[in-house]
Parts: sequence; C-alpha cells; structure tokens
Amino acid sequence: MKNMLEYVQAEGDIKKLNNPELKRLCADIRDFLIQSVSKTGGHLASNLGVVELTVAIHRVFNFPEDKLIFDVGHQSYVHKLLTGRMDKFGTLRQFGGLSGFPKRDESEYDAFDTGHSSTSVSAALGMARSRDLNGGRNNIIALFGDGALTGGEIYEALNDAGHTKTPLILILNDNHMSISKNVGAISKHLRNIRINRVYYKSKIRVSGFLDRVPVLGRAIKTVIEKIKKSIRMRILPTTMFEELGYKYIGPMSGHDLDSLIASLEYARDERKPVLIHACTVKGKGYAPAEKHPESFHGIGKFDIKTGETADEGESYSEHFGNTLTRIAKADKRVCAITCAMPDGTGLVPFSKEFRDRFFDVGIAEQHGVTFAAGMAAAGHIPVIPLYSTFLQRAFDQVLHDVCLQNLHVVFPVDRAGVVGADGPTHQGVYDISFLSCMPNMTVLSPSSFRQLDDMLQYAIERHDGPIAIRYPRGGAQSPYPYEKFEPDKAYIKQSGRDVTIITSGRMLAAARSVDGMLKTRGISAEIVELPTVHPINEAAVIAAGMKTGHVITIEDNVAAGGLGQAVAAVLAGHGVGCTFKAFAYPPEPIVHGSVAELDKKYGVDADTVANYIIKGHVTWQK
Amino acid sequence: MKNMLEYVQAEGDIKKLNNPELKRLCADIRDFLIQSVSKTGGHLASNLGVVELTVAIHRVFNFPEDKLIFDVGHQSYVHKLLTGRMDKFGTLRQFGGLSGFPKRDESEYDAFDTGHSSTSVSAALGMARSRDLNGGRNNIIALFGDGALTGGEIYEALNDAGHTKTPLILILNDNHMSISKNVGAISKHLRNIRINRVYYKSKIRVSGFLDRVPVLGRAIKTVIEKIKKSIRMRILPTTMFEELGYKYIGPMSGHDLDSLIASLEYARDERKPVLIHACTVKGKGYAPAEKHPESFHGIGKFDIKTGETADEGESYSEHFGNTLTRIAKADKRVCAITCAMPDGTGLVPFSKEFRDRFFDVGIAEQHGVTFAAGMAAAGHIPVIPLYSTFLQRAFDQVLHDVCLQNLHVVFPVDRAGVVGADGPTHQGVYDISFLSCMPNMTVLSPSSFRQLDDMLQYAIERHDGPIAIRYPRGGAQSPYPYEKFEPDKAYIKQSGRDVTIITSGRMLAAARSVDGMLKTRGISAEIVELPTVHPINEAAVIAAGMKTGHVITIEDNVAAGGLGQAVAAVLAGHGVGCTFKAFAYPPEPIVHGSVAELDKKYGVDADTVANYIIKGHVTWQK
Repeated sequence: MKNMLEYVQAEGDIKKLNNPELKRLCADIRDFLIQSVSKTGGHLASNLGVVELTVAIHRVFNFPEDKLIFDVGHQSYVHKLLTGRMDKFGTLRQFGGLSGFPKRDESEYDAFDTGHSSTSVSAALGMARSRDLNGGRNNIIALFGDGALTGGEIYEALNDAGHTKTPLILILNDNHMSISKNVGAISKHLRNIRINRVYYKSKIRVSGFLDRVPVLGRAIKTVIEKIKKSIRMRILPTTMFEELGYKYIGPMSGHDLDSLIASLEYARDERKPVLIHACTVKGKGYAPAEKHPESFHGIGKFDIKTGETADEGESYSEHFGNTLTRIAKADKRVCAITCAMPDGTGLVPFSKEFRDRFFDVGIAEQHGVTFAAGMAAAGHIPVIPLYSTFLQRAFDQVLHDVCLQNLHVVFPVDRAGVVGADGPTHQGVYDISFLSCMPNMTVLSPSSFRQLDDMLQYAIERHDGPIAIRYPRGGAQSPYPYEKFEPDKAYIKQSGRDVTIITSGRMLAAARSVDGMLKTRGISAEIVELPTVHPINEAAVIAAGMKTGHVITIEDNVAAGGLGQAVAAVLAGHGVGCTFKAFAYPPEPIVHGSVAELDKKYGVDADTVANYIIKGHVTWQK
Repeated sequence: MKNMLEYVQAEGDIKKLNNPELKRLCADIRDFLIQSVSKTGGHLASNLGVVELTVAIHRVFNFPEDKLIFDVGHQSYVHKLLTGRMDKFGTLRQFGGLSGFPKRDESEYDAFDTGHSSTSVSAALGMARSRDLNGGRNNIIALFGDGALTGGEIYEALNDAGHTKTPLILILNDNHMSISKNVGAISKHLRNIRINRVYYKSKIRVSGFLDRVPVLGRAIKTVIEKIKKSIRMRILPTTMFEELGYKYIGPMSGHDLDSLIASLEYARDERKPVLIHACTVKGKGYAPAEKHPESFHGIGKFDIKTGETADEGESYSEHFGNTLTRIAKADKRVCAITCAMPDGTGLVPFSKEFRDRFFDVGIAEQHGVTFAAGMAAAGHIPVIPLYSTFLQRAFDQVLHDVCLQNLHVVFPVDRAGVVGADGPTHQGVYDISFLSCMPNMTVLSPSSFRQLDDMLQYAIERHDGPIAIRYPRGGAQSPYPYEKFEPDKAYIKQSGRDVTIITSGRMLAAARSVDGMLKTRGISAEIVELPTVHPINEAAVIAAGMKTGHVITIEDNVAAGGLGQAVAAVLAGHGVGCTFKAFAYPPEPIVHGSVAELDKKYGVDADTVANYIIKGHVTWQK
C-alpha cells in the first residue's frame, strides 16, 4: 500500500482527503518520519508531536498565500513533507540536501527562516502589519512551543501584538517541555490552565442550581452573574493570553484532528489576534521517543527497534561537565547556570551533585547572563555554558552587565566554530569576533580535554573578570603532546624555518595535517598554538613573523574581528616585514553539512592551506 | 535654613527623622535636584518622580547590607544624595565627577551598575540566590519603571524568580510612561489594575447584601464564596504578577510616604517574592517637568524659571528623521520602527506624517528587529533607528533574523562612537566590530548631513540586504567640501606624500586638525575618507599604503574588530610594506565626560595623532 503522503505532494491535494484519509495520512507521516530520521538523524520527537497539528494547518489554510512561521523551526519536517519535499527527505541535514529548518531559499512554502527560539511572533506580526498596509487578507500563523515562552523576545512581541487588532493566529504547541523539562512561572500557569477546566463546568452547575431556587433565585443569580462578569471582564481574564489581548481557544488535544481543524477555522474567520492552545506529546507514536523525548530531541542515526544510537565517544560538553563537577567539589563558590540545556551542555552530573548550586533559568540567555552577573557581584563564581550561537542572544548582557563591571563570570562557549548539520542559524563562527570587542574579556580555546581541564581550573580559581572558553562540538583532540596551559602563553608545537602557522583549538589538527603535506615538499613549517586567543600574545606573533617571514592563520571563525585580523594588526603595527594570509570563514551564511565538508567548501581545510603555501613557497624562494 | 539633606549624609541619619522631617526632606531634595541639575544637566524628571519612594526605601532598609538595584539607573540621584554624595553633586555627569548612573566603583551603596533597561530583576535574583546559598538574611530590592516591563529580559527574570520562594522585593515605579509614552498590552494591564480597585469594594458590598437575605442567604453566600474562592485561588489571580507567583501590593501612590513605608516594611517582613506597585508622576513637583516629562527625561542645562534649554542646533537624529520623512513621501514601502524613542531618534515628524507606517514597539529591541525582518520578508522596507548601545540588545536578531536571510532592513545607528556624559553603559564604541562580523552586512558612516542624506537614499532605494548607517550624537560636520556619496568609494579629501590618514565619520574632522599641525612641520598628509566602513575598499587601502608608506587610522570604535584592524589585514594580506598605526578606543570601559575630553583621555584626538606622526616622521626620514 502506498504511503498517503504520496497523494498529497501537490498543492491543494490535502483538501481533497476525507477525515479517515486524513487520519491515515497522520499515521503514514509518523511511519515515514521514524524510518527516514532513523537513517539521517534529526529532530524526531518534536516532529512526531506536531503531525496532526501540521496536517490540520495545511487542511485549513492556503499556502503559499497564507504564511506559516515556525518558532525555532526544527518542527517543520511535517510541513516539508506536505509541501512537495517528500522525495528529498533522505538528504535531510546533509551537505547539499534538505535543511532541518525552514529556509526561504529552499521553498516558497517556507515563509521565514528560523533556528533560534522565541522569534516567531515578532516575524509574524511584521508580516501581518505589512499585509495590513497592503490591504491584504491572507492569514499569518505562528507556531511556537511552550519552551519559547520562557524567552523574552516572544513576550515583547505578545505585548506589542496584543494591543492592536491586527489579525494574527498564534498556535501554542504545549508539550510540557522545551528541550528538556520546562521551568518557571509560565510553565506553572500553563499547567494551571490545563488542570482548571473545572471552572467552566462549575460555572454552569451553579447557574442550574440557582434556577431551582424560588423567588430570590433569579435576583441573586443576576447579582452573581454581574459580579462574575465584572470580575472576568475587567480584572480577571482567564489566562495570561487573554490579559495580553488575545482571543484564547483551548486547551485542547493537539492530536485530535477534528477539534484542531474546527479551532483553526474559527481562528481564521475571527480576524483578530487569536491564540490556540494545543497540548501535544513530544515523540507521540514512537515509544522510545515518548519515553525519552530529550534524547530524541536532536538525534543521530538510530536503531528503530531499540531506539539506540551509536556511541560517539566523550564530547567536550561531557568532559567540561565532569571537570566542573570536580572543581565545584573543592570550591563552594562555584555555581552552574543553564538556559534549558542541562543535557546538551554536560551539566547533568553537576545538577545531580549540587542541586542547590545549579540553576536552570529556561530558554532565557539574557536573564541567565545578568543573573550570573548578580551572583558574581555577590561573591559566587557562576559558570554559564552556552552554545556559541545562543550566546549571541546575550551579547548585550555579557558586555553591559558582566564586562563593564569586570565581574568574574565564566562562559564556556560550547559548539564554537562550525556545528555541521544544523546549518546557518546554528554555526558558532562569530564568537571570537563578538567577544573580543568587549572590554575586560579574555577568550581561550582548548585543543584537547586536558587543556580544557587546565583552562577551566585557571578560569575559575586564578582568573578574575569575564572569561570565555570556546570549544567545538564533539571531542577532536590535539595531535601534539600536551603541554601545561598557562594564560597568554604561546606554544611552539613544532619548530620550522620556512613558514609559520598560527592557530588554536580544533584547527590545530588542520595545522598538523598541513605540516604533513608540506614536509613531503621539503617545506619546514613552524606551528604556533595560541590557546589564549584574546588578548593576543603580541610578542609571539612578532617573533613568528620575524623568524620565517611568512605567517598563516587558520581559524573556525569569520575573518572580520577574528584571530587572523588580530595577528595582522600586530604584524602591521610593529612593522614586521612578512607575508600574511588568514584562513577563516567568509562573510556569508555557512550552510549545513559535516564539519569536514564545510571546512573544505569554505577553504579552511588542510588541503587548501597546504596548496596555498606550496604555491606561494615557490614564489617566496625566488 | 539648612537643606534637610545636610542632616542625612551619614549612615543611619535618616532613621532618626520623624514624619514631618521626612516630608521636609522630600521637599528639600526636590529643590536641590532642580537647582543642581539646572546647572549640570541630567535625568531630572525621573528623579523628581522617585523622591518619596527612595526616601521610604532608605528609611526602611539598611544599606549597604541590603542591596538596592536600579533598573536603567538614571533614577538613582536621590539615592546618591542620601548616601553621602551631596557635596559632589555639582560634578554630576562631568569628566572626573559623579556618574549619572549607579557605579560600584563610586560607592559601596551602589550595588550593581546599570544603564540599559530591564536587567534589574535578573541581577537582584542572582544576588538573592547567592545570599540564600550563604545563609544570609539581607534584603535585595529592585526598582524598575513600567517602561522596563516592555523589555523581554525582565519577563525572563520574573518567570524565573516567581516560581521559587527566594525572598526578593520588586518595586514597580509606574509613571504611565517609559521614556516617551508607554505602549503595549502590559501598559493596558497596569491601567486596568489602577482603575479596577472597584472589584475589592464590590466584593464586600455583595457579601453584606446576602447577609440580609433570610433563610437561603447564608447557603447561597457559601456557594458564591466557594465559587469565587475557586476562581481566585485556582484560575484567576488578580494581576499578572500574582499569576507569576508574586505577593502583590498596590497600586498605591508613590508620593505617599506613610503608605510606602508601611508597604516596604510589610514586604521586608514577608520574606517571599513581593511586588509593590507604586504610581508616580514623572517630574513631580516641578511644573515644566510635569508638563513635558519627555523633554526633562535627559536634559542639558536649563533655566529654572522657564524650563528652557539652550538650542544645540540640528542633530544627526533630527536630520535623519526629516530626510526619512521626505524619502517616505515618495516611496510607500518605507516604514519606520522605534523602540520607545520617537523623540531621541528624530522620528516624530515621520510619526505625524505617516501614522500607519510608524510603529513604536516599546523598549523591545529584539522584537523590533525581528519585526522589521518580518516586514522586509513581506516586501516593505523597514528603517529602525536605534542608539548604538541599545542595538547591542538585538545583536542576535540582526544576525540571525536579518543578516542570514539577507533581508533589506535599514539600521540607522544613532549615538555611534562616544556619547559623553552617560558614560560606560552608553558608549557606542562597539558597533563597527559587532556589525562587521555579520554576514551580508554593510556599514556606512557619514561625516556630514549631506552625506547622510545620500547614504539614506542609497540604503533605501538602491541597496538590497541589511545595511547600517552609524552617526554620532550631535551634528559635527566634515571640514572638507562635499563629494557625492557612492557605495564602496574611497575619497581622497587631500592629496599628500608623507603619510596617509584613513578615517570616516566624525573623526574626519580630527584628521583635518592633524593635517593642520603636520603642515606647520612641513609634513604632507594624504587624507582618505572611507564612508563605507565595511566591507572595506581594499584597493584604496593598498594604494594608500603604497603611495606614502605610512598608514594611520583614526576611529571612534574599539580597536578589536574595528576599522584599523580591517585596514591592517588588507595591508598585511597584500604584502604592502608600509608602517601602520591604529588610533582607536581601548579595551576598557570608557568613562563619562565630554566627547573632546574622552578623545583626549583615550588618545584618539588630533594632538595625540599629530604628535605620533611628527615623532615618527623623524625616524621615517632617516
């Protein structure tokens, strides 16, 4: 039997299906997703949770005229399957293949690119107001999870959208968790809404009771109704969303197609700001994902029967978490803060061992960083690991709240450099630039677990003021013997006479490969590691330029404001008469693919660097 | 008669005053503030609004053990006057004098440095949790305005703080406006709370009525009470703040000392998260400030009788606003977005002429930028002027939502470079760095109003993709004849043979002064203006270095990631054998003072540059 998906690959197909067919479509989508993602990896659990929701949306609305904006965007797989991309799904998240996130470049059905949390309502409101100015009538729909509600930007948008009459359809996909378990007062509020449907029932019951009371019943009922109306209308809206100006529909099951379609049709015809609250189960329909939704949030290839993935070995994240736990045992001042990612950042062991010193603030990087600043001002030593790409959210707080006050906050920057399959919205190739321009900031970059250990120990116990330690996804290790880390120190990993390669972190391995290729041509390279990326060791850079006369830098950061430019400024500023070439990521969005594929595509790989030197070397010898 | 302030300059003095004396103290503080700020300039209106509130806080709490955190911080004058800084108040906001914001370096009574909005609750929560870990009992108080409630970060913090039992005292200083008139749903909610005190009264009245009903009265009353209790306790808290988990006290007059003191004492003894809602009048007690609070928000020296300030001439902000209005007349796609600063950014004329294309989103830079991205994706051309320092708040949104999608959003960056009296938290010396590392971004910098006009026209009508135009506070004009702006073009403003000075924007005037000094020594300088700061015109830089062999850059940005480093990278990368020196702001917080004083202090002034060249020139001639 054909998968029902095959019948809905052209525009409008889905409108022709009857209800039983729609339900079969949902089941078939789930099968397809499990099969396909088990082979490619991807964000499975979130997509299994929104199958009915997405089918209902496509049933009710007309795309691409109507616009659907996915918050975060990793839950857009079903949408992709329903908009003619089924046949490309085997290439998901692979170099040259389908993106795991909405991409306007990929399809006219993808209305807005997303990747980070809590942006959808802002973008939707922008589109809605643009439509209003043009006198248009199309529908703008934003779909966001309950996790997005801990991020401040969505609240800024709800506040702005709620006081106008701009038609806008917001769908809250409430699965009781963001990436891990959800936190905070809003989460409690949503739980209260879910529990207290009893209110509506009690209201009806009392009314009936009073109807049966003779004489005074009617008068009293009027009084009660008046009070209740006054309470409800003027002071006490049922939910925070009504308070903010939205017509609220829900809570309802996000897996009940009929209710969803009815609610969406109602919202479409209302032509006001409407919020639909749908409760879903993350991982719905696949037992291993329902049981461990956090493991199936973003997952590699897995075995469908067991749900097991291949062990990828220890990562920097895990290693960081273990080392931090060890340091915190000896130093009670050390606290750990996470923004809804205790798993991803390796903080689970810490959170178990030091419950009182562990703080999960939700997807709220801005608050997390200023909160850390407050702790530091009060004498604790907060450590707040964030993915490089999410640290961007807290740029102002790092600068304004931490750096200007020179507070001792430690920023482990996880997933620094290219991250691979998540693509442009998640690449961590900007952090050297945006951290180095901040006053009082120090940026370190380890090339091995042992170096990370030493750096963390230094950052917590010996350093004062803000300090960042950027490390890559995975666990790539230096190919050179370890030498103890000291701040500011430059390490000559190999002495040479013809050309100097300056680098740090993951790219030290590339330098080693370059050296191997150069050796076969008789070129002698000096390899200099700068684990302290910023401020730069000027003396080491000058010495390097003077010795060989040819300086090369390699980094997994963009060129502007990166390591290479800092090296160039030292060389030029001190009149070191040497040639110089920086290998860095270019000023364009960095696509998805494996790290090796991306290094190669953007010319930051060993082959490219070696070839450049070999070609240039001929010239230099003249 | 002595000003009462003189009696409360030592710790604990304020506790000795009786009620009439406290009231006289408030009156005397107002007199002192008006007198003093009329001579120095400063944030008058906000401080007049919090006189009683601050006096009450100091009456109830014990500083410095207790900690008081000011959101934004420009309303900390009264606090400064009550903590021994009365005699220094004549130096307010002047070079070497008192800061206009809380500064830990200035006084142990300043618990946390602020300047940007909506950070206070995060910092306070950090301090409170730190205190709890230490088993401390001191009070942590955050004072924030209603404007701060439109910023997402405070909501992230309220969400985090509200679900725990950490004792924390939040004071909402509700003056019905942030900097200008307040916007959004939260603002409406606060108004509703203020209006609907009637609810509490009606509740009591009904109860009395039912007591008089025979037989069934009591039974029905029980039912009603039960319903209402169920409604109130389980579903319908009175205010958003109760919903978020705070004990809510208010609304009350923020000018009634007795109520304020009683409420603060109650809050102190409660030892839970408490929110006090105090309504104040911005500018209270000084008629011109009450009438025009936005003019007296941040004001220069003024005449006490009339409230008039000296006319400072047209600013870049005003000029931008007028030009934008003119362009928008001819192009209906142009929209303007402000984050609560229509006055400060020059958008008032636009807002009056094009009401439907003007959007004030509140103090919500993140939302503002993504909202702009949404409009751009839908075909409009949004222009969103922001002060450089506040654009930092939207770093991630500019990168993630605008740049990665290469959307056509125009970012006029106002107050770029040093801003003067506001000091470290407001200096705009980071924007070249943090904008240049973003993909697809173009950064322009005008040196005159005419150049700004051309740039704006270009950015809106000819450019595609994200583009920033950074201009300084005030209206400094280029000393050179105007040449029509073309993107990427380098302008040789003066031809010379001994040294090349590369610069842009406001610093072009410094280059002209340097040239004047060099001429008297017989040194011939070439002056190159790069109005397109990023991406840099490589050919022009190479030509400059080749011609004179000595390249100097001057910029009002930090060195890391700035214009100078970009020039150095070109020179080094192309093997231009020339000397190089960058004059830029250093990697430390830039203090307050006049722009001229700061340029001089940090060595970015004409004297320093000229002396460097004159000294070096002797060497070069050898």
